[in-house]
Amino acid sequence: MKRTVLKFGGSSVASIDKIKDIANYLSRRVKDGEQLIVVVSAMGKTTDELLAHVHSITDSPNEQDLAMLLTTGEQQTISYLSISMNDRDIKAKPLTGFQAGIETVGHHLKSKISKVNTKLFDHLFLTYDIIIVAGFQGFNDENEITTLGRGGSDTTAVALAAALQCPCEIYTDVTGVYSIDPRIYPEAKRLKVVSYEEMMEMSALGAGVLTSRSIEIAKNYNIPIYLGKTLSQEKGTWIMPTIEMLEKKAVTGVAVDKDMIHITLNHPAYYPQLLDDIFINLEQEEINVDMISQIANNEGLQLSFTMKDTEEHQIQQIFKRLRQDYPELYFKIEDQFTKVSVIGSGMRDMTGVASKVFRTLIEANIPFYQVTTSEISISYVVDAKYGERAARLLCERFEL
Amino acid sequence: MKRTVLKFGGSSVASIDKIKDIANYLSRRVKDGEQLIVVVSAMGKTTDELLAHVHSITDSPNEQDLAMLLTTGEQQTISYLSISMNDRDIKAKPLTGFQAGIETVGHHLKSKISKVNTKLFDHLFLTYDIIIVAGFQGFNDENEITTLGRGGSDTTAVALAAALQCPCEIYTDVTGVYSIDPRIYPEAKRLKVVSYEEMMEMSALGAGVLTSRSIEIAKNYNIPIYLGKTLSQEKGTWIMPTIEMLEKKAVTGVAVDKDMIHITLNHPAYYPQLLDDIFINLEQEEINVDMISQIANNEGLQLSFTMKDTEEHQIQQIFKRLRQDYPELYFKIEDQFTKVSVIGSGMRDMTGVASKVFRTLIEANIPFYQVTTSEISISYVVDAKYGERAARLLCERFEL
Repeated sequence: MKRTVLKFGGSSVASIDKIKDIANYLSRRVKDGEQLIVVVSAMGKTTDELLAHVHSITDSPNEQDLAMLLTTGEQQTISYLSISMNDRDIKAKPLTGFQAGIETVGHHLKSKISKVNTKLFDHLFLTYDIIIVAGFQGFNDENEITTLGRGGSDTTAVALAAALQCPCEIYTDVTGVYSIDPRIYPEAKRLKVVSYEEMMEMSALGAGVLTSRSIEIAKNYNIPIYLGKTLSQEKGTWIMPTIEMLEKKAVTGVAVDKDMIHITLNHPAYYPQLLDDIFINLEQEEINVDMISQIANNEGLQLSFTMKDTEEHQIQQIFKRLRQDYPELYFKIEDQFTKVSVIGSGMRDMTGVASKVFRTLIEANIPFYQVTTSEISISYVVDAKYGERAARLLCERFEL
Repeated sequence: MKRTVLKFGGSSVASIDKIKDIANYLSRRVKDGEQLIVVVSAMGKTTDELLAHVHSITDSPNEQDLAMLLTTGEQQTISYLSISMNDRDIKAKPLTGFQAGIETVGHHLKSKISKVNTKLFDHLFLTYDIIIVAGFQGFNDENEITTLGRGGSDTTAVALAAALQCPCEIYTDVTGVYSIDPRIYPEAKRLKVVSYEEMMEMSALGAGVLTSRSIEIAKNYNIPIYLGKTLSQEKGTWIMPTIEMLEKKAVTGVAVDKDMIHITLNHPAYYPQLLDDIFINLEQEEINVDMISQIANNEGLQLSFTMKDTEEHQIQQIFKRLRQDYPELYFKIEDQFTKVSVIGSGMRDMTGVASKVFRTLIEANIPFYQVTTSEISISYVVDAKYGERAARLLCERFEL
């Protein structure tokens, strides 16, 4: 029997009426003979409402408590969806992350899935037609409830598909993947198919449709992912191995990542221990930095990197703490930057992409501050005010 | 170290501000050196809001799904309270019913506690100062989430106290137990102490401060229960074994149970199987009936009983179903009745209580339809319009 994991995000289940519409759609697919595992997020604004309550208590809530609170959001969605399915005479089984056997490791609020209990699903499908799993949540070896952090429900869905070796369909309120955000470049084309590698670059570089951790799982377990618009007839995008793609283009997409901050650190003497302390602290707080540049010589240490501004508060705290051990440490945090990236799996084979990009920005008088390259992408940090113009110019140059 | 279970009901935790007030109170007690286990209900109207959503989907939700949904209410309360405690530097550990090891049996929405994991608490108190448990919920042997039905959070608290052999304090928005509901008889006195037996009669007869199942657990494990008003200096009521009470009165209270319905069943022939079918059906739906009268002779079967009107819909369904097998079954459901009960553990030793009650009602021209007696109580069904007057007259007669 055909088995599929489907995931519906928060805006797709934002109201009881939307949940009923999804129940109708799922009923048809179950009646067509599919075994479905459905992963859902919290309804629309639920998480924001819970957080508003928390912030009326404290600005720094205990992480274990917060994970416990936030997971009630998805638990409510799975209950409503299961009630709707059972009401349509489809035998539905709702499962919290704990009940679904989603074991995690790491911080309570940024846990990573370590194991999924696949036997449970085989067993439940003997009795039930559809299994509805709370996304974004799991439990650790202390039996404590954890959450998976940003894009957590996608991760739940892809991890389940990987463990069960079946395809994964992810539904949101946009249709598939575009070569560039259509709000920036209205002529953007929707991609029918994209490789894991390209999609990972797009995600890591801020295209944001799916987090890179989800794509990485799909890639490692060779699970195709479909990205589509909830309850829409429009064709979405398949993410799959490169080898299955017929046609390669040098550049398939341009990603724009706004709200970046740029951090500069100086210390008059170069202590390897200092670098170590910095990165241990970043790792412990699970802060992602990218575009690291470092100069170390007799005149001391100079380090700069970029990151999302959402973690600005944490990074401030870290450096204030470090200054207690290194009183001469100087740091500066600047905001208002945008990262523009050009992505394409064909880039490995083709030359000239890099120089085309440089020329485009230079001709347009757009200054860029830091450049990093990967095997299939090139990224530039530019002033926020030039971000979208740079992206549009690059789309035109590469005929996206 | 002194260990106590405390329970705060839904109106006591109806807002974040109320939760913070309770956190302040609990902090003081923890700092005074107590080990506290706190059981909380869902915040104020949360359950009603969840049910409103459900009823926009269906009138007959799947019970497993509904239990899953409703338990999110207490899970949110324990999270907020734990965040508040941790914010006050009190090491708090929130536990869902599942995490607290509260095993249950029976219907998903009316489960009974079968086991509590006490070792867990001893273990957690090595690390934490206070353990916060979601009331009203548990899990069954299928690892499904269950709820404990009416008064469920009280049951959680008393069962934990019983398992841990420590006292239980139950806080609500009324102060302790009165000889009669002060809304009916303003001169009502608050009782300082009441026996398990008297309290069970009061509860079973509708006095409603605490369900009889909770008191039964306390009695079986010999756990004293304190009923008090949340964050109030006023002294409440202790419920404890009869033997510890210095003074006995023949009558300690009058209970008034409104919203009763009266069901009459007739069948032209007396089939023992029919009676069996009726009670099996009532048992399966876990419907509580009381005051059963039955006449069976050559002219057939006549059965009447009273029950709360909240289950009127279910009872209708049962009898409609039974009529498919017994087409000659006739049933009538009448509402607008009140049950008035006179309770007192001294009643065992003293005579004349029954005749005093009869005389009071007859003198006042209040007709009564059914009478039942237990070792320490006498109950009468009267027309709803006479209920409160009957209760007041009895209070005067017995000088309560």
